[in-house]
Order: sequence, then structure tokens, then C-alpha cells
Amino acid sequence: MSPQPTPADRFTFGLWTVGWTGTDPFGTDTRAALDPVEAVNRLAELGAYGITFHDNDLVPFGSTDQQRASIHSSFREALDQTGLKVPMVTTNLFSHPVFKDGGFTSNDRSIRRFALRKVLTNIDLAAELGAETFVMWGGREGAEYDGSKDFAAALDRMKEGVDTVAGYIKEKGYGIRLALEPKPNEPRGDIFLPTVGHALAFIAELEHGDIVGVNPETGHEQMAGLNFNHGIAQALWAGKLFHIDLNGQKSIKYDQDLVFGHGDLTSAFFTVDLLENGFPNGGPRYDGPRHFDYKPSRTDGYDGVWESAKANVAMYLLLKERALAFRADAEVQEALKVSGVVELGETTLSAGETTANLLSDRTAFEDFDVDKASERSFAFVRLNQLAMEHLLGARA
Amino acid sequence: MSPQPTPADRFTFGLWTVGWTGTDPFGTDTRAALDPVEAVNRLAELGAYGITFHDNDLVPFGSTDQQRASIHSSFREALDQTGLKVPMVTTNLFSHPVFKDGGFTSNDRSIRRFALRKVLTNIDLAAELGAETFVMWGGREGAEYDGSKDFAAALDRMKEGVDTVAGYIKEKGYGIRLALEPKPNEPRGDIFLPTVGHALAFIAELEHGDIVGVNPETGHEQMAGLNFNHGIAQALWAGKLFHIDLNGQKSIKYDQDLVFGHGDLTSAFFTVDLLENGFPNGGPRYDGPRHFDYKPSRTDGYDGVWESAKANVAMYLLLKERALAFRADAEVQEALKVSGVVELGETTLSAGETTANLLSDRTAFEDFDVDKASERSFAFVRLNQLAMEHLLGARA
Amino acid sequence: MSPQPTPADRFTFGLWTVGWTGTDPFGTDTRAALDPVEAVNRLAELGAYGITFHDNDLVPFGSTDQQRASIHSSFREALDQTGLKVPMVTTNLFSHPVFKDGGFTSNDRSIRRFALRKVLTNIDLAAELGAETFVMWGGREGAEYDGSKDFAAALDRMKEGVDTVAGYIKEKGYGIRLALEPKPNEPRGDIFLPTVGHALAFIAELEHGDIVGVNPETGHEQMAGLNFNHGIAQALWAGKLFHIDLNGQKSIKYDQDLVFGHGDLTSAFFTVDLLENGFPNGGPRYDGPRHFDYKPSRTDGYDGVWESAKANVAMYLLLKERALAFRADAEVQEALKVSGVVELGETTLSAGETTANLLSDRTAFEDFDVDKASERSFAFVRLNQLAMEHLLGARA
Amino acid sequence: MSPQPTPADRFTFGLWTVGWTGTDPFGTDTRAALDPVEAVNRLAELGAYGITFHDNDLVPFGSTDQQRASIHSSFREALDQTGLKVPMVTTNLFSHPVFKDGGFTSNDRSIRRFALRKVLTNIDLAAELGAETFVMWGGREGAEYDGSKDFAAALDRMKEGVDTVAGYIKEKGYGIRLALEPKPNEPRGDIFLPTVGHALAFIAELEHGDIVGVNPETGHEQMAGLNFNHGIAQALWAGKLFHIDLNGQKSIKYDQDLVFGHGDLTSAFFTVDLLENGFPNGGPRYDGPRHFDYKPSRTDGYDGVWESAKANVAMYLLLKERALAFRADAEVQEALKVSGVVELGETTLSAGETTANLLSDRTAFEDFDVDKASERSFAFVRLNQLAMEHLLGARA
Repeated sequence: MSPQPTPADRFTFGLWTVGWTGTDPFGTDTRAALDPVEAVNRLAELGAYGITFHDNDLVPFGSTDQQRASIHSSFREALDQTGLKVPMVTTNLFSHPVFKDGGFTSNDRSIRRFALRKVLTNIDLAAELGAETFVMWGGREGAEYDGSKDFAAALDRMKEGVDTVAGYIKEKGYGIRLALEPKPNEPRGDIFLPTVGHALAFIAELEHGDIVGVNPETGHEQMAGLNFNHGIAQALWAGKLFHIDLNGQKSIKYDQDLVFGHGDLTSAFFTVDLLENGFPNGGPRYDGPRHFDYKPSRTDGYDGVWESAKANVAMYLLLKERALAFRADAEVQEALKVSGVVELGETTLSAGETTANLLSDRTAFEDFDVDKASERSFAFVRLNQLAMEHLLGARA
Repeated sequence: MSPQPTPADRFTFGLWTVGWTGTDPFGTDTRAALDPVEAVNRLAELGAYGITFHDNDLVPFGSTDQQRASIHSSFREALDQTGLKVPMVTTNLFSHPVFKDGGFTSNDRSIRRFALRKVLTNIDLAAELGAETFVMWGGREGAEYDGSKDFAAALDRMKEGVDTVAGYIKEKGYGIRLALEPKPNEPRGDIFLPTVGHALAFIAELEHGDIVGVNPETGHEQMAGLNFNHGIAQALWAGKLFHIDLNGQKSIKYDQDLVFGHGDLTSAFFTVDLLENGFPNGGPRYDGPRHFDYKPSRTDGYDGVWESAKANVAMYLLLKERALAFRADAEVQEALKVSGVVELGETTLSAGETTANLLSDRTAFEDFDVDKASERSFAFVRLNQLAMEHLLGARA
Repeated sequence: MSPQPTPADRFTFGLWTVGWTGTDPFGTDTRAALDPVEAVNRLAELGAYGITFHDNDLVPFGSTDQQRASIHSSFREALDQTGLKVPMVTTNLFSHPVFKDGGFTSNDRSIRRFALRKVLTNIDLAAELGAETFVMWGGREGAEYDGSKDFAAALDRMKEGVDTVAGYIKEKGYGIRLALEPKPNEPRGDIFLPTVGHALAFIAELEHGDIVGVNPETGHEQMAGLNFNHGIAQALWAGKLFHIDLNGQKSIKYDQDLVFGHGDLTSAFFTVDLLENGFPNGGPRYDGPRHFDYKPSRTDGYDGVWESAKANVAMYLLLKERALAFRADAEVQEALKVSGVVELGETTLSAGETTANLLSDRTAFEDFDVDKASERSFAFVRLNQLAMEHLLGARA
Repeated sequence: MSPQPTPADRFTFGLWTVGWTGTDPFGTDTRAALDPVEAVNRLAELGAYGITFHDNDLVPFGSTDQQRASIHSSFREALDQTGLKVPMVTTNLFSHPVFKDGGFTSNDRSIRRFALRKVLTNIDLAAELGAETFVMWGGREGAEYDGSKDFAAALDRMKEGVDTVAGYIKEKGYGIRLALEPKPNEPRGDIFLPTVGHALAFIAELEHGDIVGVNPETGHEQMAGLNFNHGIAQALWAGKLFHIDLNGQKSIKYDQDLVFGHGDLTSAFFTVDLLENGFPNGGPRYDGPRHFDYKPSRTDGYDGVWESAKANVAMYLLLKERALAFRADAEVQEALKVSGVVELGETTLSAGETTANLLSDRTAFEDFDVDKASERSFAFVRLNQLAMEHLLGARA
């Protein structure tokens, strides 16, 4: 009944998503560990395009070189057999106690050096696997108390770390771009670069910012009460949407990592609308993987793990159908005009108009009929109701 | 008993703060309108350095040129008599119904042109009054529904508007800098440039970004659950903290605009610590006005208005005393070292060290004793308790 | 295309909803005042069952007796002509400055007495109009500062006020029940009885609590990050869901009062599911009006006002269709069993089983196979995905 | 310098607080396990009155009877040697995977029976140790999806469970009272009985509600953006504040469990003011333990664990000093009168006044000078500033 995914849809999953065994702040594992090879096989069957991982999802922290080699070997074999790609790799700088005060911004310099080395090592692996994107989530880079950190020094160290990694990529000639993943809090009280905006602003200060962008996650922006679609739009506008993490979150609370569409459904609809249809008046488009970064409910067994993986895909494809129909509807197109959505695509100054010209245009100010202009009805509710009816499949 | 303010403290107030008459979404005015001249006199008596205003705080929307001239004249006279400065001016693009869908990003182009003209007119006034900063709060630039706006077009129009204004300032040779004021929501469901981070990222895309910075407001960042001090630190780090709005907010809810320090007191302590003492390891400093953007409680009469104005100042000066004592305490200095706050000021790579050097340093990785490093206690709670005891005046 | 409403659906609207003219904390009216008679006529045309109002929605505060009589007369005439009912009436104790510190809990005793009289007067009107429910929203009953109120005294005064009103209703023999409407904050920093739970707990302490219940509002519970459906369920369970306010809210922020379903759509689906289908294993049902308490977007003219009124109804009816189909689906019924939703309807102790019996049942504890029990998969994601697909109309 | 605690202060700590080893959703232990005997000794040295625990804090889940007996024996010996009391005991129904869908409300009936038996067993232990209070935190009783639960059935099962336990206590003649601990979310998406209000309302429906009250936790109420002091006040007013959990939380986010006073400091001041001074006009008082339920920062070693334990006590005692001085200040007493805080203690109706009397009092309504009454200034900001200055120790 649901549309079936193919690799052309570019759906990817983190190994840590289907592999999450259920430990949370108040409880232990509810599921046994998942063999990475099984993850590859299952995701391939499901129609996924790729799989992604943190170094320690695949190879436990502290493994010997031999153990590492053996795990890598069987993982690659599974990739080869299934054709699954590894378009993104990332490094875990948050689980081990050594990173309890962060990696690149730990107050301990020796730990910062260790963290940097851990990332550089993993960049080589990412290149070897053909990854295009290297995500950096600095979940432990932050503080609980404002006195615990020199904030400017922390940003200096973050810049030093990211620029070192980016510089190394360039030196090596790897075709990899870095994508910073913002999050406002949890596990730290306040995390540095808490939103898409802060990450973009940070990137603008980098030496090698040209190969650094962002990897926004639905729930992370929503944990700050921010509109995820505004966030990815600003990233696209800045040419920096290098990767995306889709999942679900219900309001401002702990990080839920629900299935995409199982959180704020309306927001998910507009996310897919933006990814698939682009901005109403054109502009930059995202063409990377649709990456699901979610957690299968801890209450469910492995049946639920695979059902939830499928649910992400099913939700995306259903929302895509609805978003395509929404834009194709002539009544919607007309409503977009009535509401001025198209008009916002026009520049405020006319082509060639200077500020001096504007200042001498009495119709713009002195003779402008403010009262009449105030009466314009933007009819936004009607437009939204049209969107809701398309979302609900009620206009088919 | 409390320390007394002087103009050297550079305390400034918005005319709209002490002049707020109490209209809110569920109720009408509880206080009569305040004469701007009285505001000037009272604030001067209180020891303020300056007063700021939106065009329509001083001159009602739709006034005749003669009315405007008369109001300006008596206002300037009061300024001259008291010596109060006008270091900042701003424009109201949110109260009148014509701006119901915004000013620079209204879906209606004629309204965008009108808004731009309104701002340009006000820039001249700001220059005339000797203002150094022109704040732009785009409170109506946003949307309730994701379908209501072309987000990329909105950012294009915002850029066009801000660049036009900044270009005009340069053309005119005015010594004015623009400061964008972020807010996540209210009165719009989602406002564009919702946080300090988003505003900084936007500025990085401007043509005339060199004279554009931010004006963060305590409560606005806290409405997104974000740490205000992290926000102003990132702005300072980017060289963009052009102005600051101090007030109080309790958790994530409607915009409360409480007295500074009457919201999150601990955060206020660290704000003053940062403004007065700077970062622990040095770095950029803020030397602009300490601007209070708050609302006197609607439950209070004018006695309460002036008490609340004094309370802002009293809180700031008390917190300054405590912050100075905090940094001067030898036990605190030692704790900052134990916690690594000083160590974070050291670069991760040594002077002259290349990535290649780092990669060949076995002590950094291969021979690094992770377990031992994991055992380091950062002792952050002790450091925070020292801060709390200084804040409470318990270590005097 | 959409299903058409009839009075049998019992849809009702507040006069203040379609009549909201757009004043908000940062802006003035964007629409002219609405004639109550027009509201009656339009809502009747739309298929509504009834209209509700605050005393001052209909008759402005401070009107003469004659003005009041004249307004009442034309309003009743419109009701008679259209057949629209007035199933609920409420009193405004929040807009006028006299209520700036509340009505029943104002720190000023003379204002408390005035407030009580204002309500008692309105109870007579409610009875005269045949209202079954009298809603009390104490939006100004609260504080910004913990020192401003004696909290126990405030609850005493609230109890005194509500019991006086309830006692009066009984004395008069009116067939009216009171419904308290909780809200966490806005316009006060913290409002007393902030959630459904607090209101239910308060009612349990009343002398005349038998005729006092709650009127939960979608957005009000969601402003505290609480699950609205959990809230109305607990009210139903306590036999206290006397009325309901349906609308939309997006996350924790200012009170948005969006169209029902235009906020958290998934939550709205489950609200309708609960109202129309009841609890999965039976239990108390709600059979009162479906009351919309929303605000038409300030950006829209009167076209948008009436479109938004229709949108509330359309959303409800669409969600009703989907909820009925959801429960009728055999696969859903089977999934409810697999997930144990039906099993939760079984008592934990068997019929007649005593605690002593339970203690001697070794299969319950000593011999209970915890590991095996831990393996049960509750399959909640699959069940939720079935709900999502019904909501999206994707299983028709 | 700080005041020193004594057992008379009745400070108590959970064994799980100082014993927390640092596992969180994104990281593993950073500290080794703590021997319960050491916890007892250390807390006794610190001046604590008592220690509390969950069954599995002391005796790991699945221990043999012999292991249990041995642990109990050494624990009791330490208690005897130090004189430390165990005023409260609680049961862990959330960590083990068997409770992944809850204990008393698990959709699996056999698990509900097991949970009930686990609690009953622990009630015997609590009685044996002389505990007066048995806390029940149902952290896993909830859902992520509204379809996962029959909400009415869940409340029925919760009632059945609590009434069974309370009935058992009565049967046995134990001098124990139950205290339900509310929390809005985490680890479940939505937890049943999310706030103090919901728990109080639930208790009102119990058969054995007379021995059931609440155990509010600072951070849990604040996670819903609610005012903790309003919450404990309503519990006191209902005669149901049986126990209290003090800690710190910063805004709405994951459960932080900071040191008391290290979250919202102003709120903590008013908590201590209420606990130590009672309501301004008298009324019910709390005289139970001051129980700290916090987590020592994961970034700190055991030095930090014990520093943080001391910090809780130091903060409480400092705030107590300030709260006593606040109430003793004549200017504060006068300000409480000006603001009407004392006046709120007067009944709205005079002694013996009937509703009929009120209705015939023209001064209350017909002749009430609304405009004049509106002019009253409640002067709340001045009162709050006095509180702030006492809190800061600036009026000594």
C-alpha cells in the first residue's frame, strides 16, 4: 500500500539507530547488541541507500588493531554484497569518560589532543570508505555552570580543532566535507553551537570554512522550541546544508529521537516539501542523503526495531506524495499568490533602483495609503488549511 | 546602602520601558501615558547615562510634521538640560497593522518599501541625535505557518533591507552601526533570525556586514531555553556585540521583560561578570551602554515604575560588586586552575606544531593513558559553589 | 469535499474568537469590531450548534443598563432566528485594569468582592439563556514574584469564591455546572491552578465540588509541555470533564490559539479519537459541546476569520473520519491486543483476590521469569505507525 | 564561614545521589561504584540526619537472599554506628528492562503483579528500618504515543496498585505514609501524574487516600515550566506535602538534578522561605526531612561528589539565614501590607455574611468606584527587590 523505497531515494540510517539497545538515564539495555553485518543486510533489504556510523558503533573503544581490522573486513564485505554505501562517517567524542568535559573543548589539553587524533584517524577511514561527509556532533562540548568555561577560549579551541581537521582533509585531497551538528543541551547543560544559527555563525569565522557546513537534526532544533524548517532554510540559503538528520520530537524536553513524522507531523510535512519541492520561488536545493537519526522505542523488541526503520521510510514517502500534490494543486498555486508568497520573491527595490531613487519615490512613503495597505488580508489560514488537507490526503 | 549609579556606568533605558502603560494580550492599559520629557528628567535623576527610543515611542504614528517638530524640540531641550545622551535609536516596524506580516519581509512589496523608507528616515534622526547604534528588532518578520513564507526569499529581502540601510549609513558618512535584535517568537509564531546565532550567521552573508552586529536581549535567548551568556560570548568572539538589552525572564514562556536580575539571578551574575571582568583568559570586551529593556509590572503604578527602574540599576551594581570580589578571590583563582578554565586558554597544538607533528606524537594518542586521563576531576561543582557564595555575599 | 457540520455535531464558538480584532502585546487592532449579531448569523450558516461569550464580549464594561438591555435584546433575537444555542457563558475578570492583580484572589479585598458580584450577576444571565456550563478562567489569578502572594490564602480565597458561586447556583436551583479553565502562565508569570491536574485537585477540596469540573484547553496544557489527551483523560476518569476548549499550539511558547489541528496535528487526532471513540476498554465519555477557543490570524481580514472558523470544523470532521476508520480496522484491533492495550483493561489482582493471596502466589514473584518477561516486545511503534497511516488517510 | 548543619536540620540524601556513577544517555560511568557503608559514614560526618534508598540502590536486582542479608547487615551496622536514620525508602520500578513499559501500569499484567509484589516486599523493609515515608516515583508509567495506552485503564491500574499498597500498610499497622512523586516526562515521553496537581487529584480518588500524599521535586515541576513553590503550596494547602525532594534545574530541558540552589536560585530562596517561615498569614507547615535528590556532576570525581553534597546543605542554610532576615525586616513587613499580601488573608465575605448580604451591598458593586480601585499600585516590584537584596545579603 505504501510506496516502496529504492536506493535512488537516498535513505540512510545510522548504525547506532537500529543498533540502540535501550540504555537511558534511568534504565539499562532492553535489547541485545546488534551485529553490524545484520544491520547492513536488513537496511539493504529495506531499500536503504546507505549506512553511517561513529567509529565506536562499529569498533568498540579500546579494541586492538587486529579486532578493528577483523570488524572492518566483515563490515566491508557486507557492504560489497549489498551495495549499501557509507556516505557519512562520524566520530564518537562523547561516550567514554575521558570525554566527560568534551573533546575539542575539554578543559584538559591532553584530552583535546587525544580527541583531535581520534578524529584525524577516523577521517582516513571515512575517505577509505568513500564517505562524502564527516559529521561532527560535539555533544560533550559545553558546560553546566557558566563559571566552568572560558567561552571565548572554548570557541577558539573549537575553531582550532575544526580548522585542523578541515586543513588535514585538504592536505590529503580527500573529497570530504565536514558537517557540524548543533544541539542545545543534553548531555551537557548548555552545549556550544546550540542551534543551526550558532553553527553557521561559527563556520563564518573559520579558516577552512569553505568545506564546513551543518547537519541539522529535526529534534535538536525543536528542543529549543525553534522551527526546524526555518533552520534548514537558513542553512540552504547560506549554501551550508551539507547533510540532514531526520527524526521526531514532541515539544521541548529530553531528546526523544522518535521516528520521522512521529513527532511534529505538520513540521515533517513542510520539511519534505522543502527538500523535495524546494523554495516556492526557487533557490538552493538539498540533494544529499535523507538520513534518519532516531531511536527505536526501548519498549519494543527487534521486531519493533525493523518496523520503526520501515516507518521512517514510509512516513517520508507518504509525505513526499502529499507535498508533490500540494504544490501541483492549482488552488494552492493561486492561494500562494493571494498570500503574497510569490510576491516575496520580488526584490524590494526595482532593478537598478538606488536608495536615492527610493527616497524620492513619494508613492513609497509620503503618498503611501497606509490604511488601505493595512487592510490587505494575507489569507494565511486558508493556505494552511489547504496544506493540512493535502497532508491528510483529503483532497485526492 | 546600595551603590549609587553615575553616568560613567553607562546605564541606559528605553523610553518604551518606563513608558509602557500595561496593555497585554488579555488586558488594557493600567497606567496613563508618560510624557517623554518626564522620562528624561526622571532617568537623569536616577543616574542614567542615556535614553533610547523607537520613532513612535516619541512621535505617534501618523503625526504631522509640525507635531513631530514640536515633540522633538521639547525632548531635545530636556536632553540638553539633563545631559542625558541618546546612544541608540530604533524604528517601530511592528505595532501598526500595516506591519502585520512584517516590514522588510512582508509578503506585500509596497509595505516592504514603506518600511525601508520609515527606517531610512529614522537613520537621519539617529545621526542628528548622535546615536552610535541603530537597533533593528524584526518582531513581525516571521510566520505562524510554514507555508506562509518563502524562507529563502524572506532572507533575501531581509538582506536587501539591511544592506540598503547599512549602505545608506556609509554613503551619508554617519558614525552609526546597526545592531540586529534576535527573538525566537512572539508576536509571530516563529520569527526570522530567532537567536544570536542566526543573526550572526545572517550578518556574515551581508555586503555591508562590517557595520552590522547584534543586540542580544537576556529574555529573548532564554525564551528558547538558550544560555544568554553563551550567546553574548559568541557575539563578542565574532566582534559583533554592538549593544545589549538586559532584563529578566523566568524559563520558556511569553516574553516577560522583568527587571534585570529578577529572572534567572545566577545567569545575571555571570552576565555582569562577563561584561565587567571579561573572559577569564582575556579576549574581546564589551564597552557599550548597559541598556535595560524591561517592562515595569502592570500591577504597579508610577511609584512602581520608578522603583523598577532603580531596581535594574541596583541589581546591576550589586552583581558587579559580587563579580569583582569573585574574580579577586585567591581561592577562586586557584579553583579556576584546578578546573582547567585557565588551561582552556592554551592552544591544543603547540606553537608551530603542524598536523603532521601532532600525528607523530605518540604521547597524544598511541601512548596516551586514557584511563588515567578519565580520572581527572574537573571539580566544577566546587567552583560553582564559590560563585554562588560570592553572589550571595557570603564570603565577604 | 469535506464533510459538512450540523448542529448535531455540537460545534460551538466563543464570540471572542471570531470577534478578536488583533491586539497583541506588540501591536494594535488589525480588524474592525464584529457585530455580535453578525457572529450569530455567520456561525449558524456554518453549521454551528452554539455560541458562547464573556459578559464583556457582548456588553462592554461600564455600559448602562439600557445599553445592556438593548444589546441583549438584539442578540437574543438573532439566537431565536437562527436556532443557535448558548450552552456556555463566562465572565471576564481579566481585561479591565481593576483586575490587574486578579479577581477572586486579588490582594485587594474590595476588588475580590466586586469580582464575585460580577460573576453572580452573570450567573443569572447564564441561567436565563439556558446555559448548562459556566466557565471560569482565572487568567489574572497569579503572580510574577513568589513574594507577591500568600499562596495558601490565595487558594482559600479561590475556594471561597468558587464555593460562593456554586452555592448560589444551588440556592437558585439553576441547572448550571461550573468548569474551571487551567492555564500555566500568560498574562501572569504563574497562574494559580496551572493545569488540569491542579484544578481537579482544587475541586476535590471544595464544599460544592459536585457541580464543579474543568474546561481544559488544548493549548493551555501544551504550554506546559503536557500531553493534552492525558489531561482530558484524567478529567474524564474523575468524572469532571464538563466542557472542552479545542485549538492549536506549537510547542512551549506564548498562547497561540491556532485553529484546532493547526498546532500538534497528531495530538489533535488522538483528542478526536478519545472524544468520539472513548477509551479502548470503555469507561467515561464526554458528550458536551466541541467548543473552539481560537484566534483567527491577525494577518488575515474577515475573509480569513470565516475561513478559520470553517477550518476548525473541517479539521474536526476529517479527524473524526480518520479516528473512526482507525478503530474499525481489524489490523489495528489486533495490534492493540499485541501491544497489551486491551490487557491493561484487566485488573492486576484477580476478581476476589486479596493482597494475602497475591503474596502467596509464587508465580507472581519468586518463580516469575523476569528475563522472559523482559523480552516481550510491546510493538508500540507499529501501532503508532498504523495510527499515522489512518491519520494521513493512507489506508483507505 | 558557612553555617554548620546538625541532624536537627533534618537533611537527608538519597543513596543514589552521592552514589550516581555518571551513566547518561550518551555516556558510561565516570566514577566507580560507591560502597553504601561509605555513603552512610560520609553523610553522617557531613551532619546529615538520614539516608534514603531504592531497594536496588542497596541490593542489586536479582541478588540472592544471602547477598541481600549480608548487605542489609553491614548497612544497618553503619546506621547504628553513625546514628543516621532512614526516614524514607522507595522501590525501583524503572531500571530493569522488565519495567520498560512501567510497573503498576505496564500493559503486561504479569509485570504489574510482579511490580506490586516488589513494592510490598519493600514496604516490610521500610517498616523494619523505621521509615515514615515510602516514596513512589512511577518514572516508567507513561507512554510515547497516545495510542499505546488506555489512559483510563492506566489510572484504574495505578489506583489499584496504590490502594493495594496503602491497604497493606494499614493491615500491617505500619506507621508509613505513601508519597507519590510526579514528573512530566523522561524517561517516558509523557509520564502519568505529571505534576503535583495531577498527583493530588489522583489521590482524591483513592480508597486509602488518607495515607497517600506527594513528594514534589524542584526540578520535576520546573521541567514543565511550573512554579515549584506554587506546587508545594497547593500540596501543603491540601494537607498532602508528605516529603520533599530539593535540587536544581535550569529551565525546561532534560532532568538535570543539580545541587539545590544551583538551578533557579530565586525560586530556591522562596522554597526555603516557605519551608522555614511558612505562609505569610499562617497556615499548614511542613516539618519533614529536607531531602536532597540531586546528581553530582559527571565531570567531577569523588572529591566533587562530597563537595556537592556539602554544597546542598550550605545553600539551604545560607538561604535559611536570608529568609529569616527577610521576614524579620520591618520594611519588608510594611511592604507586605502595602502590597496587600496580608489583606489576602482576610476572607472576601465578612464573618457571617451570606451571599444574599453580599448581593445587597451596593458598595461592593453598584457604587464601587472601579476607576479608583484600578489605580491602586500593588508595588510588587519594590517587594521583590527587597527580597532580592535579602537574598544577596545586601541589607545586612
